[in-house]
Amino acid sequence: MGLKEQILESVRQDLVEIEAALTENLKPYLPLVSHIAKYIMFSGGKRMRPLLMVLSARLCGYKGNYDKTLSIVFEYLHAATLLHDDLVDGADIRRGNPVAHSIWGNPATVLVGDFLLARSIAIAAQTGSVAIVDILAHTTAQMSEGEIHQLLNRGDLAVKETEYMEVIRRKTAYLIQAACQVGALLGEAQQEQVQALADYGYHLGIAFQMVDDLLDYTANTRVLGKATGTDLREGKLTLPVIYALSRATKEDRRRMETIIRDMDMTASDFDTVLGLIKKYGGIAYTRDRAREHIDQAKKSLDIFSASKTRTLLEQLADYALAREM
Amino acid sequence: MGLKEQILESVRQDLVEIEAALTENLKPYLPLVSHIAKYIMFSGGKRMRPLLMVLSARLCGYKGNYDKTLSIVFEYLHAATLLHDDLVDGADIRRGNPVAHSIWGNPATVLVGDFLLARSIAIAAQTGSVAIVDILAHTTAQMSEGEIHQLLNRGDLAVKETEYMEVIRRKTAYLIQAACQVGALLGEAQQEQVQALADYGYHLGIAFQMVDDLLDYTANTRVLGKATGTDLREGKLTLPVIYALSRATKEDRRRMETIIRDMDMTASDFDTVLGLIKKYGGIAYTRDRAREHIDQAKKSLDIFSASKTRTLLEQLADYALAREM
Repeated sequence: MGLKEQILESVRQDLVEIEAALTENLKPYLPLVSHIAKYIMFSGGKRMRPLLMVLSARLCGYKGNYDKTLSIVFEYLHAATLLHDDLVDGADIRRGNPVAHSIWGNPATVLVGDFLLARSIAIAAQTGSVAIVDILAHTTAQMSEGEIHQLLNRGDLAVKETEYMEVIRRKTAYLIQAACQVGALLGEAQQEQVQALADYGYHLGIAFQMVDDLLDYTANTRVLGKATGTDLREGKLTLPVIYALSRATKEDRRRMETIIRDMDMTASDFDTVLGLIKKYGGIAYTRDRAREHIDQAKKSLDIFSASKTRTLLEQLADYALAREM
Repeated sequence: MGLKEQILESVRQDLVEIEAALTENLKPYLPLVSHIAKYIMFSGGKRMRPLLMVLSARLCGYKGNYDKTLSIVFEYLHAATLLHDDLVDGADIRRGNPVAHSIWGNPATVLVGDFLLARSIAIAAQTGSVAIVDILAHTTAQMSEGEIHQLLNRGDLAVKETEYMEVIRRKTAYLIQAACQVGALLGEAQQEQVQALADYGYHLGIAFQMVDDLLDYTANTRVLGKATGTDLREGKLTLPVIYALSRATKEDRRRMETIIRDMDMTASDFDTVLGLIKKYGGIAYTRDRAREHIDQAKKSLDIFSASKTRTLLEQLADYALAREM
């Protein structure tokens, strides 16, 4: 049995309960809100964030029955940002389907994103924990700033690795960190445990985004559910190309820049850039950085004694690195 | 001294402190977020919502110094919805200035709206009161649903008064209600007082939106800061025209419908519709409904003993009806 199958086997029941909570708690008064929200939420999402929250709570000894409900906050928030980000990026396809705004238009998509964001805070408030609400509100503010930063960097060929890190920290890592941290808080964990799970989530989140950015260069298109090279076509420079540009000869650098600046990059242009990225080790470098973060994520869990849940969190980290979509 | 000048005289110091809090608490890490947020927030807003929160707290005996900071939550939330709504409506002008999305583009405008929304919840969480956070989160969800409902109604000539009420309740009244209610909660008011201020805010909010909708037909364009007839041109049917359509003869109804359906309504077309709205009492009817809600708002305050603050809240209600912009 492969790693993915092992994980899925272990979390089957959790996933069933998370799906049920996702459907039960939406409660809009307009059917359209439900349609759009469900379209984005039930189109192949892996429920990584809710699952991480549930497992983090369990690792800290949580025995209550509010974990599944609270966990969906992270899926609602994630869905809200997907709706807004696809619109911001001018994307066409997500997970093999047309993006929501191409079906329902920008206005409804913006507003349903707002609705999901607000619902997620409302559900979090039901815990009665201001600390949890506070984490979510700050994370949401950071996420929008990360997306704006990415937008400002668009097409900028001088973007540095440090700036890339600033962006992915805000747009991706903080939400995954928040899921783990909130799980620990729900489990009334000690400060040290809360911090350990926050660190785990942070490093996992960084690695997860790096792998996402890698897959945009290397994935099988059918598995990915969209064409490779999307980031580059949107003028989004990610670590593989940032690293390669920093190492390339003047001549190769100019070749890459010319292609990236071209609005109508052909498949053969993309292959040329990919060849140069590989030549200068951009793929290997990014994978190495991702692996380091996965190692740090797993190391953060050392303070917890061995358990089935800890093993599962470690497996999830390994899978984040090994995944093909 | 006119009513407006009297009110401004009484709240001068409060407004100064609210302005200071608005600037101090934004704290984005990107300058662009600050630019866009300030553009929408410092372009002639009247600070009605923060002011209502501050006065509501004071009426309930609040003596602390967190009121101004908390009050800006309502301006941030309001600004967030203005950014998103202008984009949703495809508006060009707000308060005499080009709308934000025409300067910075839709993507940044969507994301800065998200940022403001998140910041407002984060500031509310600083109170340590889950009840306050909960009100804000629910209000935000309702507001997005109100806007979606309005969007769905767009161009629909069969919209009824009840449906119009559903929309304005969500898109406008609940936020003003929340400001008053949160003020009362900050002032640790008794349940009866919280309810009274919630009622005051609700009816004030309904009347405020009705007057807004009236002004779109009757205002002096220079004072309004945008052309009259904007709602109708956007296919937004408000109470004056809904009422007139319900009372018009078959023939007049058809004349109005033809003009409203026309994408390129001329100034003379608009005058024709306005004439028919007046003929069937749409303006007078809307003003009467608004006056009833203002009366109910003021009546809600009866449980409070006479005070300078209560008088001020009553004056604000009168001004909401009398205002020319």
